Amino acid sequence: MWRAQVITLYPEMFPGPLGHSLAGRALADGRWALETVQLRDFATDRHRSVDDTPAGGGPGMVLKADVLAGAIDFARARLDAPVIALTPRGPRITQSRVRQLAEGSGVTLLCGRFEGFDERIFAGRAIEPLSVGDIILSGGEPGAILLLDACIRLLSGVMGAASSGDEESFESGLLEYPHYTRPAVWEGHAIPEVLTSGDHGKIRAWRQRRALEDTRLWRPDLVGPPSGVSNPPPRGKGTEE
Amino acid sequence: MWRAQVITLYPEMFPGPLGHSLAGRALADGRWALETVQLRDFATDRHRSVDDTPAGGGPGMVLKADVLAGAIDFARARLDAPVIALTPRGPRITQSRVRQLAEGSGVTLLCGRFEGFDERIFAGRAIEPLSVGDIILSGGEPGAILLLDACIRLLSGVMGAASSGDEESFESGLLEYPHYTRPAVWEGHAIPEVLTSGDHGKIRAWRQRRALEDTRLWRPDLVGPPSGVSNPPPRGKGTEE
Repeated sequence: MWRAQVITLYPEMFPGPLGHSLAGRALADGRWALETVQLRDFATDRHRSVDDTPAGGGPGMVLKADVLAGAIDFARARLDAPVIALTPRGPRITQSRVRQLAEGSGVTLLCGRFEGFDERIFAGRAIEPLSVGDIILSGGEPGAILLLDACIRLLSGVMGAASSGDEESFESGLLEYPHYTRPAVWEGHAIPEVLTSGDHGKIRAWRQRRALEDTRLWRPDLVGPPSGVSNPPPRGKGTEE
Repeated sequence: MWRAQVITLYPEMFPGPLGHSLAGRALADGRWALETVQLRDFATDRHRSVDDTPAGGGPGMVLKADVLAGAIDFARARLDAPVIALTPRGPRITQSRVRQLAEGSGVTLLCGRFEGFDERIFAGRAIEPLSVGDIILSGGEPGAILLLDACIRLLSGVMGAASSGDEESFESGLLEYPHYTRPAVWEGHAIPEVLTSGDHGKIRAWRQRRALEDTRLWRPDLVGPPSGVSNPPPRGKGTEE
């Protein structure tokens, strides 16, 4: 069974949305398991403090390295799996990293709050920093839910026969092509004719073309410029792969 | 009061983690409000179906444009705010867009499931597609929670006097500098000497340098190469801003 551990000051946030729908059914079916670790249990002083003011001054509070280390050591003794710290100060999560995690034994996620982690925890423990995106959250917990959801849907048996993992956005390096369904005409907008032609070769070609066009439109960072354009130079596939 | 609406097949996922900690206290204090819209209530057939098979074939199911339109029209009549569809087929969310949303009246978030939305909904209704990252989720709900959390912490009165919004990652175009706190030495790792020097000019300079160095290390897409390196050419600040 794939095992998730979350180190957090707010264990009551879990499973949260992961207790419903696809992830919730998989949890009930025993396809994955979730345990939380209350960071405050590893405080060492009588006030049970987990944070302190930043060295050098500035606003906010910083999670203490000694408290973090206690929780990480406890979690690692219980589960032999990568420990990932959710932080904007790290590389961005990619679908290929999600796939690796889903193929492993599980993951331990370390959620920050306040200004973040005492930086020395990254020197003192083997932790992988990962960012879920270029926005600032109140803490790592919403990012942990996002990352776990992405992993869980890839676990064996979770998506079932309707699985469509291979054709989806980012799996090919492009966004997925657009989808249409009945009715054939909705408010004057018709389904593109090729999709109702029954010609599977044409359908495949149209979808490939639209995937590329839409990636250029919405996510030009994922692809080079259209052919025939020589300036600016191709940016390649970005730096995340 | 800032108002959030979520159009979803799983209203029971909300407020979820947003009912705790910073966002939860702000919800209880009336600094924001949350309403869900059950997409299935807008089904038009006697089976209450919300999805159908993809035109042109392929796996999965597609959310129907007529059902989506009914829910969007209902939500828009109730709240005059941007309608955002969470989808990997769109530009990536940025902190500046989060800030814009937090300064407005609120937001309506449309969560997909299955293969996604009938593409015609983007032609038939004014909807902004936004992606929360380059990973595939089981549905839009975890992304909605992430986006709402990022907005809520910026609302007036939510972060309070400890607010540190201006110095954080991405607000300056760089990752934030690293943080340290007591003890002065932890497992042999000392806090960098400059931070305990009391010299505020030196501290500021050190933090600026580390912010730039760490951005180059973790997120080279956000900055150009180090000075003195002439090849490859500067990539600028990326395509998202």
